[in-house]
Amino acid sequence: MSRDIKVVVWNEFRHEKRNDPVRKLYPDGMHALIALHLNGDSGIHAELASLDEPEHGLSESRLADTGVLIWWGHIAHNEVADEIVSRVQRRVNQGMGFIALHSAHASKPFRRLMGTGCGFDRHRMFGELIGERERLWVVMPSHPIAAGLARHFELEHEEMFGEFYDIPAPDELVFISWFQGGEVFRSGCCFTRGRGRVFYFRPGHEFCPTFHDPNVLRVISNAVRWAAPGSDAVEHVHEEGPLEPLS
Amino acid sequence: MSRDIKVVVWNEFRHEKRNDPVRKLYPDGMHALIALHLNGDSGIHAELASLDEPEHGLSESRLADTGVLIWWGHIAHNEVADEIVSRVQRRVNQGMGFIALHSAHASKPFRRLMGTGCGFDRHRMFGELIGERERLWVVMPSHPIAAGLARHFELEHEEMFGEFYDIPAPDELVFISWFQGGEVFRSGCCFTRGRGRVFYFRPGHEFCPTFHDPNVLRVISNAVRWAAPGSDAVEHVHEEGPLEPLS
Amino acid sequence: MSRDIKVVVWNEFRHEKRNDPVRKLYPDGMHALIALHLNGDSGIHAELASLDEPEHGLSESRLADTGVLIWWGHIAHNEVADEIVSRVQRRVNQGMGFIALHSAHASKPFRRLMGTGCGFDRHRMFGELIGERERLWVVMPSHPIAAGLARHFELEHEEMFGEFYDIPAPDELVFISWFQGGEVFRSGCCFTRGRGRVFYFRPGHEFCPTFHDPNVLRVISNAVRWAAPGSDAVEHVHEEGPLEPLS
Amino acid sequence: MSRDIKVVVWNEFRHEKRNDPVRKLYPDGMHALIALHLNGDSGIHAELASLDEPEHGLSESRLADTGVLIWWGHIAHNEVADEIVSRVQRRVNQGMGFIALHSAHASKPFRRLMGTGCGFDRHRMFGELIGERERLWVVMPSHPIAAGLARHFELEHEEMFGEFYDIPAPDELVFISWFQGGEVFRSGCCFTRGRGRVFYFRPGHEFCPTFHDPNVLRVISNAVRWAAPGSDAVEHVHEEGPLEPLS
Repeated sequence: MSRDIKVVVWNEFRHEKRNDPVRKLYPDGMHALIALHLNGDSGIHAELASLDEPEHGLSESRLADTGVLIWWGHIAHNEVADEIVSRVQRRVNQGMGFIALHSAHASKPFRRLMGTGCGFDRHRMFGELIGERERLWVVMPSHPIAAGLARHFELEHEEMFGEFYDIPAPDELVFISWFQGGEVFRSGCCFTRGRGRVFYFRPGHEFCPTFHDPNVLRVISNAVRWAAPGSDAVEHVHEEGPLEPLS
Repeated sequence: MSRDIKVVVWNEFRHEKRNDPVRKLYPDGMHALIALHLNGDSGIHAELASLDEPEHGLSESRLADTGVLIWWGHIAHNEVADEIVSRVQRRVNQGMGFIALHSAHASKPFRRLMGTGCGFDRHRMFGELIGERERLWVVMPSHPIAAGLARHFELEHEEMFGEFYDIPAPDELVFISWFQGGEVFRSGCCFTRGRGRVFYFRPGHEFCPTFHDPNVLRVISNAVRWAAPGSDAVEHVHEEGPLEPLS
Repeated sequence: MSRDIKVVVWNEFRHEKRNDPVRKLYPDGMHALIALHLNGDSGIHAELASLDEPEHGLSESRLADTGVLIWWGHIAHNEVADEIVSRVQRRVNQGMGFIALHSAHASKPFRRLMGTGCGFDRHRMFGELIGERERLWVVMPSHPIAAGLARHFELEHEEMFGEFYDIPAPDELVFISWFQGGEVFRSGCCFTRGRGRVFYFRPGHEFCPTFHDPNVLRVISNAVRWAAPGSDAVEHVHEEGPLEPLS
Repeated sequence: MSRDIKVVVWNEFRHEKRNDPVRKLYPDGMHALIALHLNGDSGIHAELASLDEPEHGLSESRLADTGVLIWWGHIAHNEVADEIVSRVQRRVNQGMGFIALHSAHASKPFRRLMGTGCGFDRHRMFGELIGERERLWVVMPSHPIAAGLARHFELEHEEMFGEFYDIPAPDELVFISWFQGGEVFRSGCCFTRGRGRVFYFRPGHEFCPTFHDPNVLRVISNAVRWAAPGSDAVEHVHEEGPLEPLS
């Protein structure tokens, strides 16, 4: 009987198992922290899925019942089975929302939905530390994904991304990032694909405490609500038979 | 204490007073019928305003309290005071929604918001009867304004409009009309101006029973919800002082 | 030494070999007629390619030298090798123009570039005859692809397509079709993918003399010029080394 | 007999007369330097106009013959006569290109064309010196206005502008600026209004040598070519009489 938005938070979930600093930040995985936050939001019910589960945790029946799929991946994009990617793409076209976080810019489902390479330019080298100041500016303050935010917010330590970011021009551009070292990036990008809404959100490197940040979590909640399919979308009323030509 | 969306339905309200067939269709004015429908919708509170009231019924304080302004005008666009037009434009830029119906394509506030002439081509003459079949096709089924509609709906008797319609390319195009006589028209067009959302909806000639049509009324309700400002939009949190430069 | 735009016109080239009425309309294939027209245009050099050639006529080296690829396919989309599709997609992302004609809406390369199913609704049945009047309206008269056209043009006999057409919202919408039987269709759609421009143009059923029509041929020439990569695009100057962070 | 693009470079032309540092940078006015550059470009013929001329140098007949109007203004926006503003707006709607430079974001013609306030947020105070590093990133490398540029270019001394910049979402976004002090800005924005193309370009404070910069001049030339009306645009062929309804 619930009208909750059903969310699946998908995580590659490798760094957290293998890498001490990442595990320290996200002992149960980034997805667990994000889901915990979402489940504290009335009207949202979030569950987890990850790469190493059968069918990556994304069976046909589960996806059929999912309103919004959140995706984080980084080093194992190629291990995601093409069949599952096609399944995700089909569901988005049918109306499921899709939110790609950070390095999911290069994930298979996001690239499929975009039709481009989705790479970006990085012209300078980092030292051992990922840790540059990022300031995210709201450039579309009336957008629901920006609700409740100030004109900008900051992350003390993040990984830098730089333009040109090879995506189609977003239907709506909500955030632009400023980086301490001299770059800008289109950091909050909205798309529609078929009947489904897609949001790309830039922050979220595994070495950074980004998913503990209240502004970042707010953006994710907002994006879930924005991307959730409407309760009575057109897709459900296409019952009519063939149409007689007018004359 | 109410969180209702406050709507003002503005009507030129001349035809209904002077012209029998129009009065027969809309004895209390088109705006009254639209407001009656909206007030039957939980979460919306609609009131009326019209040209011949002081300040056209749109005082500063009333507009300051209005979430969405619906506008219908036709033969008296020039009688609308420029000062009121500027007031409406300012409020839209601050976040008020604005819905322009039918011949309001040529109204002063809509033209101000668009920055173009907003005319269209009409290459053929009508007889005495306005009464051509219009079929509105949904071309963005996932859009909230199309919620609950079938893939198209029809109006048996409407006035024809034809392209080229001289508006900026809409941010989102929801409906395209087909006319029996050979025209098409971009009939449902979404824009953002400042923090406010703007929707143009084509049907609604005064000689036609268009605002009695359940699909048309559904579109108007949907558009009100879509255009209503968010409860906690960015505009309210811009309280910070000057910003220190980073280094 | 030539600065001509190099065009390859790709055709599935099956109907013309097997079906008498089609062969009568296009004895050497639709692609041959289109190329003949383009080669009459100064500044364009067009060649042919088709499905049954090795690598479908689209070797790496040939594509590397192609400025704009025009694509027509219908009954054999599935016979196009995925490797060639990836090759085309990569080249578009690098800057090659791509023009999809008519039933190429469902071709593999177009669907890859769009990220959606690219299907459309057809709600009524045809008789034996494809032959309905289509009127194409210019809805963006300043667009280079509409140069030299009147406000609309007509095709006496074409196949009907109907909305919802499952593509991402086009970056620019140039034409909308009106069909005699009651449909509309977004018939001229511009996209950018990576550094490449993509144009979808609706008319061109194999049973119709569409590619003999001077307005259709004009659109194709215009689209070739619009989609051709610039002579000194950014892609050629990305030679710089790593960038020093600013401070 | 010339097919040159006719450009008028309009300048408020007050700072250069009154302020020594500005006169030193632009002894004959910024407009003169820009026109000198454009006239060195084959296919462009540029002339000057300024605020204190009769009709601000923009008579009906002159505008009727102008292909692209470039506009720079800052401290005297309010002295521009509304009648001339309407004239400019009408011409843009008919097909004339319009390029707004720097503080022309708040000029009357630009605001008219946008329909919004066109303000932006500046949250920090400057010292006496305008002089902050600005780096402009190309975010749409295939766009004609970015032709010949590297992935970014820098201006050592410019005035900072910050988001939110209150314009409608641009049809195409070509540049985003990074500022040393922590801001970003949508610095190269394309719009279509009626049959005319509009480009906003951010740099160009009067105290900075911006219009001596080869990248800036390149952008202006590119923008002139992009904004120039086509030689055979649709507007010229709308000669047909009334249209018979189809049946």
